[in-house]
Amino acid sequence: MANAPDVHICEAGPRDGLQNLDIFIPTEAKRALIDAIVAAGVREIDAGSFVPPKVVPQFADVEIVMAHALTHKDATIGALVPNFKGAERAIAAGVDAIYFVISVSETHNQANVRRTIEEQLEGFRAVRAAIDARPAGNRPHLMGGISTAFGCSMEGRIGEGSVRRLAAAYAEAGADEIGLADTVGYATPPLIKQIVQGVRRDLGPAMSLRLHLHDTLGMGLANAVAGLEAGIRRFDAAVSGLGGCPFAPGARGNIVTEDLVFMLEEMGLSTGIGLDRLMATRAILSAHIPARHLTGHLHEAGIPKA
Amino acid sequence: MANAPDVHICEAGPRDGLQNLDIFIPTEAKRALIDAIVAAGVREIDAGSFVPPKVVPQFADVEIVMAHALTHKDATIGALVPNFKGAERAIAAGVDAIYFVISVSETHNQANVRRTIEEQLEGFRAVRAAIDARPAGNRPHLMGGISTAFGCSMEGRIGEGSVRRLAAAYAEAGADEIGLADTVGYATPPLIKQIVQGVRRDLGPAMSLRLHLHDTLGMGLANAVAGLEAGIRRFDAAVSGLGGCPFAPGARGNIVTEDLVFMLEEMGLSTGIGLDRLMATRAILSAHIPARHLTGHLHEAGIPKA
Repeated sequence: MANAPDVHICEAGPRDGLQNLDIFIPTEAKRALIDAIVAAGVREIDAGSFVPPKVVPQFADVEIVMAHALTHKDATIGALVPNFKGAERAIAAGVDAIYFVISVSETHNQANVRRTIEEQLEGFRAVRAAIDARPAGNRPHLMGGISTAFGCSMEGRIGEGSVRRLAAAYAEAGADEIGLADTVGYATPPLIKQIVQGVRRDLGPAMSLRLHLHDTLGMGLANAVAGLEAGIRRFDAAVSGLGGCPFAPGARGNIVTEDLVFMLEEMGLSTGIGLDRLMATRAILSAHIPARHLTGHLHEAGIPKA
Repeated sequence: MANAPDVHICEAGPRDGLQNLDIFIPTEAKRALIDAIVAAGVREIDAGSFVPPKVVPQFADVEIVMAHALTHKDATIGALVPNFKGAERAIAAGVDAIYFVISVSETHNQANVRRTIEEQLEGFRAVRAAIDARPAGNRPHLMGGISTAFGCSMEGRIGEGSVRRLAAAYAEAGADEIGLADTVGYATPPLIKQIVQGVRRDLGPAMSLRLHLHDTLGMGLANAVAGLEAGIRRFDAAVSGLGGCPFAPGARGNIVTEDLVFMLEEMGLSTGIGLDRLMATRAILSAHIPARHLTGHLHEAGIPKA
């Protein structure tokens, strides 16, 4: 922990990785997964969603899982929230970070959170106010997540202008960070650079930006490299390539954390993550999740000896 | 065929894709595969290896397959040769292109062709002379292929200098093109750029360069993008991600032609290849090859409608 790693990776497996499964992962396995991720050196975990259990039954135990995750004082423990009510629960749970979501695609936004984009922005402002009303030093980090920022399986192509406007609205509403999410995995490397550079120009160098990538079409790591070249140093990823959005048809898994870590370290960029230990998460997942949901080139090929 | 596509793709499935399988693909299926590839608009095919059948039984029928492939006058039909004897057979078969191979890794070169690098270069010069002795207009294109150019599973890291020296030796010996092959799939995007730019500086802008990539560790398309950014416009790839080297432990499939074509076209780079037709090759392979050997994100996710 002496030096910050060159690239910061947030492990999204416990949230994005599990939300799309029709299998309930036992609470104990969720806790074990989080412990293994922290033991590997990961310093931020998207550990669950504060959504109604009726909508996503997987997170019926989110309070219990979050309480356990928060015993890890050396990691930032975050949660996705779709609305103000979810944020209230997340704040009550004591999370370190809140990931709010708004889709650029009005169609996906309706499917995902059943509100218009404008209504979602109102909700975000209310979350900001609720956080600011808390004592200093006890305010979770607030990320404004932009879903379908690089394409939507329902609306198709997404205009750069719409993404930039939403990012600017988030910034004006007090987001601590902007997350650009390729929810369905339609981004290409040039599109990543175009959108990241556009948002960066609008918001200036001080605003923290992160990329959330899915590997639907095989371009996941290529898009990560494009993000690196555009200056991104914060990425979401999921162990064993788990993931997908229940309300985005066609979306497949997140970029594989193991493969991302290997690539970055091979490129000479430190992540602070131990690959052997990270790959040990596979056994926890395999005990509950069918093999067809588990991907990852390193898991298939093994870590090269050379 | 009015305009040349922005990116030229050589389909290596019928050669690199099949050489590592322990299943003999019937001659008729090989012919059908080649026909389907040409029908999709591919304009160069690595259609087989002129190696002794004892070494690679898959190519016991290479003369028959090649004779059929050569009926496609609208495509360049090439063959891999490991030595002068193979080249004699390829020339006798009337191929349009000969892909000669030398590994930068002395260990892999011995395993692959049972000669030293210097002996291989002697063989290459003999092939060049044999081609030049033929009437003008009837001389196959001669590529000097550099195997393990980005790493070797036996020797580990490969020095940039060794690759550049071998490329220069090929050029001096009269290669029409240099092929840089990531035989085991250990390349990273920065390494691709470094080696390509180094070779380009040495050989000048007139020398044709191609990249041959494997996707062992998930970086295949990221490496292709790095190649594009370094000016490469000629790539090998294999349908359904088939491939591997029988003499390179750990090597996995080639980059998937379908995924590469989709990515390039999404990036606005034409390939001349029809994706629907290309994906129809899957049925030919599935009839003979177990599903575990067949990969490809587009095959899994489907072609996005948007």
